[in-house]
Amino acid sequence: MTTRFDILGIGNAIVDVVAQADDTFLSRHDMRKGSMTLIDPEAAETLYATMPPGQESSGGSAANTCAVAAALGARVAYLGKVANDQLGTVFRHDMMAIGVHFPSTPLYGGASTARCLILVTPDGQRTMNTYLGACVSFSEADVSEALVADAAVSYLEGYLFDPPAAQRAFRRAAAAAHAAGQQVALSLSDPFCVDRHRAAFLELVKQDVDILFANEAEVTSLYEENSFETAAERARADVALAALTRSEAGSVILRGDETVEIAAEPTRVVDTTGAGDAYAAGFLAGLTSGKPLPVCGRIASIAAAEVISHFGARPQIDLKKLIRSV
Amino acid sequence: MTTRFDILGIGNAIVDVVAQADDTFLSRHDMRKGSMTLIDPEAAETLYATMPPGQESSGGSAANTCAVAAALGARVAYLGKVANDQLGTVFRHDMMAIGVHFPSTPLYGGASTARCLILVTPDGQRTMNTYLGACVSFSEADVSEALVADAAVSYLEGYLFDPPAAQRAFRRAAAAAHAAGQQVALSLSDPFCVDRHRAAFLELVKQDVDILFANEAEVTSLYEENSFETAAERARADVALAALTRSEAGSVILRGDETVEIAAEPTRVVDTTGAGDAYAAGFLAGLTSGKPLPVCGRIASIAAAEVISHFGARPQIDLKKLIRSV
Repeated sequence: MTTRFDILGIGNAIVDVVAQADDTFLSRHDMRKGSMTLIDPEAAETLYATMPPGQESSGGSAANTCAVAAALGARVAYLGKVANDQLGTVFRHDMMAIGVHFPSTPLYGGASTARCLILVTPDGQRTMNTYLGACVSFSEADVSEALVADAAVSYLEGYLFDPPAAQRAFRRAAAAAHAAGQQVALSLSDPFCVDRHRAAFLELVKQDVDILFANEAEVTSLYEENSFETAAERARADVALAALTRSEAGSVILRGDETVEIAAEPTRVVDTTGAGDAYAAGFLAGLTSGKPLPVCGRIASIAAAEVISHFGARPQIDLKKLIRSV
Repeated sequence: MTTRFDILGIGNAIVDVVAQADDTFLSRHDMRKGSMTLIDPEAAETLYATMPPGQESSGGSAANTCAVAAALGARVAYLGKVANDQLGTVFRHDMMAIGVHFPSTPLYGGASTARCLILVTPDGQRTMNTYLGACVSFSEADVSEALVADAAVSYLEGYLFDPPAAQRAFRRAAAAAHAAGQQVALSLSDPFCVDRHRAAFLELVKQDVDILFANEAEVTSLYEENSFETAAERARADVALAALTRSEAGSVILRGDETVEIAAEPTRVVDTTGAGDAYAAGFLAGLTSGKPLPVCGRIASIAAAEVISHFGARPQIDLKKLIRSV
């Protein structure tokens, strides 16, 4: 049966504040380079006050994936909670302007729209500090089962396990997708997020996930394995399809006995924010349009390379043109 | 007498929303490429709804100049009116984070922080649509004469002539600067802005301006001359010092009988937003630190080249390092 959407993303709706900083800034603020840390509003205010000048842009892991997939021509919807404020308006505008259906109602009179304070170091690594704000109120009631049933793939970000109500929303979406005969994809998001919720993630991966996205640190954290190869084999056993990324070492796609190795696209690394999100977008855009796995992997790598070649997690050039020759 | 500040900028405090668009988008919306148009809140909302995804960053002509000058090591203060809202907080943060003293109180319970919707076409040209918001309430009362007296140069943007109360604030600042034996600089900002206020500009230039910044379109509009050379000679007669820019043809600096030609710094043009602002910043940073005119012009050109090599009007790399060899 044809669905209205190829991809439905569900995640924390966040506006990014991106600033450049050196490594001493990170160590002075006890930040773990490359990771995502949750902070409360007071900590967000204190950190912001010490941050260099920033640039604001819509972010959020699954939201970035949706934006990139839409830019690649996929039919995309998104569910996530912003507040009824200026940054919420910015987030909504950017989703709709790129062609993503975004029916979620905003939060009135509660917390403000979530912000992620991102420090990009000279090596292009991004270190994230997230104030979840309105995202904390995202709940089961925000998941339309009809919408889930009308998407070929429901794509869920691991970060959604942090706000407790969202975890239930997550399970509801997975159940509704399978009940409608559709697929569930999960991105593990962050090794420390995996650490915080390992048991829940493992259960979900074994029972509910058809397509798993993870980088090396995340998949080895999930299975508490030191070796990428061993962790990858466990993922192969647990899910129908796994796409595992290894930064400049490329990625590997596992489906049953099949193994596809994809080289990373050469690029200048400016800001790695959104690299994994863009990879998942390219992969799912390819998959839902019936492309073979090596082509899905190539589109994924090209999308990721574009996003890390500039500041910000959303594409700045015409991605459709970029993948024309694939 | 030593002043506390080298430069005091006074201008419209604006947050930019930058999006990429093609020329058909401009013609469909009846926009004049390269110009700045004032729009009301309804028009801003309508235009925003049709705009591609954007990136937000602090802007405002004189504010950009202040940010770049501070990045170059100058001691800088700024006066301008934001609202007590999220974008106002962003604007304030970015000024303070780059080291600009920004004592202006925000507007409570009135219009929102000003926004400039900027469309950047593939040729790198920017076309601006400004909703002035809280800037309209900037008035004489917002100009501290003590602060003006404590800055070697008070730098005023021509755009400030659009909100009527600001025009009086402008005159107050000029009078206070001269009473304290300090200098007044003016940037003409935009040829259509000059057109709207030609008589007032001409009077100001003749009576109150020591240092004039203008590009070719602006200075020819001011004097209603077809030839740049003729307009430049009239500027030479009217002000003690004029720095006139001609895009890739470089700039010319006039002081009494002296004429200094400055080549443009070669660069890749991505987004011309803030080019003139950065030029003025480099020039004034050089001038107030006692550099000879050819060096002031070189610093100005280097700062402008950095700003047009990426999206956004504020520097993205260490400008002090960039001018170390000048």
